[in-house]
Formats: sequence, structure tokens, C-alpha cells
Amino acid sequence: MEVAKDTTILNAAISAGVYIKSACGGDGVCGQCKVILKKGKVAVQPAGRLSPEEKQAGIHLACLSEVHGDLEVEIPPESKLDFEKLTTDAYSAAEEIEPPASIIKEGIFKHSPLATKIYLELPQPNLNDKISDLERLYRQLAKIKVPISQISLSNIKRLGELLRDSDWKVTATLAKKDGVTEIVHLESADTSGKNFGMCFDIGTTTISAQLVDLNSKHTLGAKAAYNKQASFGSDVITRIIYAREKDGLEKLHNAVAEEMNRMIQELIKEHNIDLNDVNCVVCAGNTTMIQLLLEIDPSYIRKEPYVPTANFLPVIRASEVEININPRGLLFCVPGVSSYVGGDVSAGVLSCGLNKAKNLSLLIDIGTNGEIVLGNKDFLVASAASAGPAFEGSGLSCGMRASAGAIEKVKINPKNFSVEYKTIGSARARGICGSGYIDIISEMLRTGLIDKLGRMKSGYNKEFIIVKKEEADSSADIIISEADIENIKRAKAAIYSAASALIRHMGFDFKDLKKIFIAGGFGTSIDIEKAITIGLLPGLNKSRFVFVGNSSLAGARQILLSEEAMEKAEKIAKKITYLELSVEPSYMDEYMAALFFPHTDLNRFPSIRH
Amino acid sequence: MEVAKDTTILNAAISAGVYIKSACGGDGVCGQCKVILKKGKVAVQPAGRLSPEEKQAGIHLACLSEVHGDLEVEIPPESKLDFEKLTTDAYSAAEEIEPPASIIKEGIFKHSPLATKIYLELPQPNLNDKISDLERLYRQLAKIKVPISQISLSNIKRLGELLRDSDWKVTATLAKKDGVTEIVHLESADTSGKNFGMCFDIGTTTISAQLVDLNSKHTLGAKAAYNKQASFGSDVITRIIYAREKDGLEKLHNAVAEEMNRMIQELIKEHNIDLNDVNCVVCAGNTTMIQLLLEIDPSYIRKEPYVPTANFLPVIRASEVEININPRGLLFCVPGVSSYVGGDVSAGVLSCGLNKAKNLSLLIDIGTNGEIVLGNKDFLVASAASAGPAFEGSGLSCGMRASAGAIEKVKINPKNFSVEYKTIGSARARGICGSGYIDIISEMLRTGLIDKLGRMKSGYNKEFIIVKKEEADSSADIIISEADIENIKRAKAAIYSAASALIRHMGFDFKDLKKIFIAGGFGTSIDIEKAITIGLLPGLNKSRFVFVGNSSLAGARQILLSEEAMEKAEKIAKKITYLELSVEPSYMDEYMAALFFPHTDLNRFPSIRH
Repeated sequence: MEVAKDTTILNAAISAGVYIKSACGGDGVCGQCKVILKKGKVAVQPAGRLSPEEKQAGIHLACLSEVHGDLEVEIPPESKLDFEKLTTDAYSAAEEIEPPASIIKEGIFKHSPLATKIYLELPQPNLNDKISDLERLYRQLAKIKVPISQISLSNIKRLGELLRDSDWKVTATLAKKDGVTEIVHLESADTSGKNFGMCFDIGTTTISAQLVDLNSKHTLGAKAAYNKQASFGSDVITRIIYAREKDGLEKLHNAVAEEMNRMIQELIKEHNIDLNDVNCVVCAGNTTMIQLLLEIDPSYIRKEPYVPTANFLPVIRASEVEININPRGLLFCVPGVSSYVGGDVSAGVLSCGLNKAKNLSLLIDIGTNGEIVLGNKDFLVASAASAGPAFEGSGLSCGMRASAGAIEKVKINPKNFSVEYKTIGSARARGICGSGYIDIISEMLRTGLIDKLGRMKSGYNKEFIIVKKEEADSSADIIISEADIENIKRAKAAIYSAASALIRHMGFDFKDLKKIFIAGGFGTSIDIEKAITIGLLPGLNKSRFVFVGNSSLAGARQILLSEEAMEKAEKIAKKITYLELSVEPSYMDEYMAALFFPHTDLNRFPSIRH
Repeated sequence: MEVAKDTTILNAAISAGVYIKSACGGDGVCGQCKVILKKGKVAVQPAGRLSPEEKQAGIHLACLSEVHGDLEVEIPPESKLDFEKLTTDAYSAAEEIEPPASIIKEGIFKHSPLATKIYLELPQPNLNDKISDLERLYRQLAKIKVPISQISLSNIKRLGELLRDSDWKVTATLAKKDGVTEIVHLESADTSGKNFGMCFDIGTTTISAQLVDLNSKHTLGAKAAYNKQASFGSDVITRIIYAREKDGLEKLHNAVAEEMNRMIQELIKEHNIDLNDVNCVVCAGNTTMIQLLLEIDPSYIRKEPYVPTANFLPVIRASEVEININPRGLLFCVPGVSSYVGGDVSAGVLSCGLNKAKNLSLLIDIGTNGEIVLGNKDFLVASAASAGPAFEGSGLSCGMRASAGAIEKVKINPKNFSVEYKTIGSARARGICGSGYIDIISEMLRTGLIDKLGRMKSGYNKEFIIVKKEEADSSADIIISEADIENIKRAKAAIYSAASALIRHMGFDFKDLKKIFIAGGFGTSIDIEKAITIGLLPGLNKSRFVFVGNSSLAGARQILLSEEAMEKAEKIAKKITYLELSVEPSYMDEYMAALFFPHTDLNRFPSIRH
């Protein structure tokens, strides 16, 4: 491949479709993008992240090395973002496609999908009935009480021939766009049975999607994959900074759009669906992810006073942001609250029904940006904490998404430290997902393999083998390292302390919570007791916790199937008050106190104290 | 220039920007596209339209001669559509830009232009006022009672930087699109003073335009030009047929769009206006012209039961049909009635106020498609007659548009047949416009130079010189031929008989008419008595006639300046009933009877009988 002079190796690799780890987004700070220069010359910016030995061995930071001629570069396995291995599977078990029954029960809205298809048999024109083709179409729709106000010129251009070729029998696809009903598409004959939509949860680390039959309400298939934007930085801040680089915004946009298109393509192929029958897309995501999808500069999100360009986005055509469905199909973004509380939170509140709760309840969405919402039917306050991607399996030695082959349940024998485990889909182990890490750390604490600070028992050389490579679908042993444990500790501390600070700020205590909804894509379920053991969740009775899975995706799906749900989500977004924790004096203290397993204050964890 | 093998000389010439006359649109029927082959070889389809002498002289029909190698072709002056000479001038006199006072008086609507500009000073965000940029904009607009529902993604993408770069002081351009107010454009600082629009009358033969200041309501300039589609056929039927040829629709669309863009460009240059400050366009035209502008296949207009694709078209972006104004600017089409009564008629009724008349009145729009509307405040019935382009100066030996240098008034001395004449703008004579022809034929009848059938006095070799070339701005004498007179006779017969058949069908007589509005672009005024003399207008007292000029353009201008006028035009279009004359048994008899000067039935023309 050829690239322009002065292109960094990092950018050259991305252009070639090779993804290199880079948590800092190319600032030369994180030191993850190490590559070995085998041949050729590069211009190197000085970096303190390489040891003399590494320099000796020809190791360079890809983000600081500019191409000045023909090169041969080796990417060591530890620098590779191995999307391929991790992104090809859908959740394997069919029952996991539908959100848990608890959510479905609470979140039933009228079935009024964002795109509907109506079959029409128009009377043919004659000398006594000569109204124009378009008026004829509108008249027929008016007969069945559909008020139409908009149709595109492209549809009008096709209209005359289409009506005659189809013997005046056509199917109209209708959708509401900013309160106005539009004829999105017209086609010959009765195709009203084929009406599909996609919903997406666009997370900083993980993108999840479902293909939904808008008539039957059935979810036909699901996909989840890492967000390839990770190559430009592992958190929203580094990506916002990267967006300001030359073509940065475009690259970030393309990374997410391409991944979404790939998921749509795979799902329609698996289910034998025509792309033209996919009529709308609903996206829930944090504010930065949505702005990047729409290619809106996110710079001001991280500059005081931290305002996004828009929380309520107009309905657009999916094609405007290069999402390939029906060319006239629409894309809806679930409205957000603020720069750090996005539409994923509104969707989450919608799907778990927090906005209707009689008693004080909490929603904890465990993601790269951990979001906490406290409230009930009367009020909703939200906050966000930067947890990092650890619970989604990213940035860890053997972490992976919650898909087939991920270790999700673990037991350690306290006598001989032998390990029993269960993988998703009972496949051969390939790595460890979020719920697996919770189990492992909890078991290691219980069996004394680690102490309260996460330091490993001596004799283990800072790592513990979960599955030997011989038993696994992996080229190396599946292990957990002290660094992994540190990573998880920081993530759980960020989430716990954010929840704690928010609750205290509002004058409550964890004990006042009647229900705690746990959301996130870290597994098919979570062992609540073990999550309490490591201090991720507060030490309350198990019965108060409800695991709701990916609540953002579940909310997006409800919206896809119901205009009423969309209206409700708008109300929720307007109702939520945002609390900025960084200006909350108690937050840093809370965080420091939570950097223990489970916590420095054991009074908060009575079950563990005993 | 190179063209593909088998391209006709006619199409090759058009591609090279050379326009050849072709009334039949390339069917080899009209015989107007004669060219002389000087060098090279062509494949010729047989045609009966060439005499043996012509064939001997190397004359070919351009539409039937296909290029098979290098050619040298001469286009004789009589085959050339000399747009250049005829289209470069605007109406010269400023008072002609504004519609006549009679119209302005009757047609006053509330000033509510289709595009408005509002200057906004937004409060800057701070930690206590952190709503998003877009919500901040909407909030400010809500304060001044502007309900906004739509904004494009392109404007949202610019929003963050624009607001900060402009110190939160911006001007929003607003327009209503299908009942929803949209932010069309946003720009820095206060530009609310610069808000312009264009109105167009798109006729089969002539395109007329005005540039209007939407704030002051002043018309800044006007242009008129021949519609270059004439090269593909002189009437709507031949163009509809041509639209089905390969690339035919696209070529017809481009011809009109390019001409409109040229007019816009010239007007903004003359008035030092930025293209981005032209925010909307209103187009009135017959149904075929509007469908060709929008590149909608017009085929079904000429197939029983003659229905157009749409009479009411949605508001679109001008850029969707390649009309260059502000890239987000909107284009409105005045709603039409049927395949042969278009938005030009709705606009005409609006501007002359026929829909508000207490007494029975008539509007006669003299164009290539002559349209007649009979009615008052209670009912409106319309009909159309194919008159041809003669009154617009097209298809005649020395015809031209009503622009500077056109002979518009003529007197002939009955003793020595010497001619006195007056030109538009008192310029040197360049040709004869519609009102000039009316005068000339009337004078020739009065002085006995022609008889009732239009046959010229012997000794004139079938032509009569109006101005010798020495006196004129012309390379040849300015003459009127017997063929010209025949042409005008057919045109006036078509219009008169259509009016007569319509009135009789409705059970009335010309005498019942209290007012007759005469519209058309054939001159700056019309001598009513002379128009009666030739039988174009019925023999009623002069006081009942009102000359209203280009009433379609005047209506389009009112709509540009007033949403209320647009709503009124919609009501008018719905109210008008269309009467198809071709199925009216009396129409052909009426037409045949009118092929005399003034008419076979002199009882209808009492002033002439005496």
C-alpha cells in the first residue's frame, strides 16, 4: 500500500484495515501502539514510553513514527486490536435476543412502529376521475385516515410509471419525520409483510444491534462487535481530541458507520431479507458516539461549560450518514440529556421503567462510560463515571466480549486453587467476559489468592491461569494478571463511587433504594453476590437487584416498535437532571475509598464483614 | 467536437450549444431543421420534406441525418434558433418590472415572504445554563414565537463552530416546508437585510423571471428569454414525445434549468447580490413545463385519460433540480389544475383577482398554450387551446420577444401604404413582437393590403416590408409574410374559439362578461380595438378589457412575498374545474369559423360590421 509522506504508521495501518491498540488516540502517551520496524526509515518524534532495550530491538510507537519511504513493519500480537476474533459472533442462544421478561412486562407500548407499510389498491383514472397520480395516492391514504404531508421528489419521479406498471396496486412505506407523516418509499404489489428495522446501542467500546420484524415485533437476530473507533483512543475524551486531527472526524465516523453496515449486511443475509425492506434505524448511544456517527464535531463536549451540539436530533435519512438501508429509510437518534448522559441512558430508563417506579430506584449502566440514574416517577437525576472498557473485556490480557466461548462463571477450589468454569454457549474457552472477571476476582478474594488491594499471593508471578491453552480455543493460556485486577478495581471503584456520590448528593443512602437495575453487556447474567463481594455493587439484599442486560438496546428496540415509546423517551430525556460529579467535592474521596476489595468502609458491606 | 456514431446532427448541434429550429422535436415531420452538408458522410433516413432541388444542394434534415464520420455542416440562417440575439435584454423600462397598478391594487396580501431572515443574539452557555447549542437556538426562536420543527444535518454540523466564531450572534433563514417551519440556513452576524427571492413564469416558448427583495417587496430586476427547449419541439406535445427518447427528459430538464440559472446569475451580478442570499424560488408554469423542470416523465399527460403525475407538488430544495441559489434554498411550484391547466393559470387568476370578481369575468392568457378561465367568486372553469408560439414572436419571419427593439405599434397609411411604427424602448427596430403583429394585420385589413382570409394584395409577392434593413438593426428587411399572417390567424382562431366554446358550454354569451383580463407576454400593452379587428378578442366595448401583462409571473411574485397568497393559490387550483375542449362537439366548428379576419359571423363583431 502507498501512503503520503509523513503519514504515521498508526494511520497507515488503519488505512490498510489493520487495527493497532491506541488508548490515547495517537498522542504518544499510552505506549500501546508498539510496532517493530523491520526495514526502511521513519521520522520519529521523541517519546519517553520506550525502554532502551525496546529501542534497541527496533520497537517504535506507531503513532509517533512517520513514513519516509518503503517500510516493513511487524505488529506484535500484544499491540494488535484483534477485532476479527472477537466480533464475528452473535449471541448464540436465541432466548438471549429478547430482553429479559422483567423488562418486556414493564415496557409495553402500543404497537406503532416508526415505519409502517400499507398496501393500496387505487382506482384507475378515467375521463370522469382525472385527478393526478399523486392526489390519487393521497386520496386513498386519506380514506384510511392517514394524513400525508411529505413525499420526496425521487418518489414522485417514479410515480407515474410505478402505478401503471403495478396495475395501480402498490405498497407505501410511511414514517413520521418531525411530526409529519412521509411516504418514504413506494413499491409494486403487496409487500406489506416485509417491514424491518434495526436498533443499535452504540457504545464507546461495544456496538450492539438487533434486526426486528416491525410487523410481528419479533427480534430476528442480533450482533455485537467492538467499536473500531477504539483504534483512535479507548475513551470518549481521546476520541474527541482525535476528531480535531486532519480527517479525524471523518475517520471516526467511518469506523462506526462501516461496522454498523457490516452488522446490517450480515443480519439481512442470515435472514434472507432485502436491504430495501429495512426501513428505519434507531440509535441509542452516548452523546459523543452519536455526534461521531452523525459526523458532528464533538469538541465542545469537553470544553467548559461542556455543551453538546444537540441532545434532540432531527430525524434524518440513514443515507445522510452513510448507513445503508432502504435509500429513503430514516434514522432516529434517541434523545440525550447532556454531554455525558446520552440517549443510551434515556433508552435505558425507558426500558427498565425507572421513570414509572413508585419507590426510589437506581439504574447502573456498566459500560466504558458508566451511567447512574437515581429516581422514580417524580424525579430523575443522572451522573456519569469514566470506568474504562474493562467490564466489556477490553484492555485486559484475555478479555473479550460476552459472546460464544467467553468464560462467564468461575469457581475456585480453596484447597488446590483448581478452577471450574462455564462459557457462553458452552463453547471451548476463548477468553473472559465482564461477568467472568467479577466471578474470578470474587473467588480469588474468597480463597485468599489476592488481598484487599488486589495483590496476588506470592509465587504466582503476578498472573493466575484460568484455563490452560491445551483445553482452550486459544494459542496461549487464558490468565488473569495483577494488572487486569487493577484495571477492574479502578472500573468498579469509578462506578460504585459515582453511584454513592450521586445518592448522597441527593440526600439519600443506598439503603433507601427499593430496586437497583443493573445494565451492561458484560455477560448474559451477573452473580449479584459476587459483584457485591468485589465492591462493584452496594451491599444490599440480593432481592433488590434486577439484571436488565443491555437496557439501552432494549429501549431502542421499544422505540423502533412504537412511536409512543419515542415520545416517552423524549419526555424522559427532558425530565432527567444531570449532576456533574467532577465538581462534587465528595466524589474523589469516594473514589479513593473504593479502590479496595470491596471498600475501605466495611460497614457498607455487612454481608462481607461477617 | 466529437460525438458518438449515429448521433443525429440535431442532437450533435445541441450538445455543441448550437440551436436548430425543430417544431416536431426530431420526428422528420416539420422540415424546419434544414442544414447543408459541406463535407463528410451521414446516414440519412428517408424524408418527404425535401424537394429534389434541396437534396441536390446538399440540404439535409438535421434530425434524420446520423453522423458517420467527420463532418462540416452549415446551418442556414432560417434554420437557426437565434436565442442569442433575442434573449439578452431585460425589459428596459423600470415601470414594466412592476405589474400594472390594477393588479397590485386587487392582489394585496399580508407581507409574509416564503423565506424570512431573523437576527438572533443568543446568551452564551455557562455552567448554570448548559443546554445544547441546538436547543439554545430553538429556545431563542421560541421567545419570539417562531415554532421550529426542522433543521438539516448539514446545518447542525456547522452549528457548534458557527455560534462560537460569531460570538453567539447569528442570522437564521426560515422557510415553511409543507406546513413545517425549517431553519434553511444559518450565518454569522446580522445579515437579515439581505433576503432575496426569484419568481419565474416558465412558458413553453418564453421564460420570464424577476429578482425580488423579500424585505422591501421591491422587484430589483427582470429577465425574459426564449425557452431553449424549443429546439426539441415548439409545443408541449412534441416535447412530451421527445422526453421518452434516450436522455430526452434529462436534456429537456437541463435546457430549462440552465436558462433559469443564467437569468439568476445575470440578475444577481447586475444587483451585486450574493447567491447565498437568494433563499427561495417560486415557479409558475404549465403542467408539462413544471414536470420537465422537476425531471418528472410527462408521458401520461398526453395519454388518455390525460393525468399529470402531480398538480400539487411538495416544496423541494432548489438544488434537487439543479437550480443554483443558496444550497439549502427552497423551490415552490404554484399548484396546477390538470394536465393542460397548470400553475401559471392559478397564479394568473390570483394576480388578476378573478376568484374575487362579483360579476362574470374572463381571463385570457395568450401564450403557446392559450388558457381561458371563466368565472367569478362562486365558480371557476378553465380550458386550454394550443395556439402555438406566434404571439410570442416565435416561428415567424421576423418575430421576436417583447424586448428592446421590438416593433409593438404600427400604423399604415391607406394611400401609399407607408408605415409608421414604434419600438419598445424606442430602440432601432430588430423585429416584431406579438402586439406589433396584431397592429400590422389590423392595419393591413383596414387598408385592404390583405383580405378576410389573410391573402395579400397582388403585386406583393406574399410579403410586405415594415422596416427596410437600412433603417433597422437587422441584416435583412423586417417583413411580414403571408405565412406569418396564416400563423397568427390560426393562433387567434384557437384562442377565440376556445373562449367562445367555453362560454357557450357554460350557458353564457360574451355579452354576459363584465370584465375580460388579457394576459400574455406579447407586448407592453395591446391595442384592444385592433385585437378585436383581427378577431383575437370578442367584439365588446373596449372598457370591459383589462390588460394585465404576464399575470402568471405577477402571481408567482405575490406568492414569493406572501404565504397567504400561496394558500390562496392552492384554493384557486382546487376550485378551478377543467373543461376538455377536444371532447366538446362545438369546438371544431368554432375554430373553423374563426379562421377569418375577424370571423365568419360578423354579428359577433358589431363594431367591425359598420
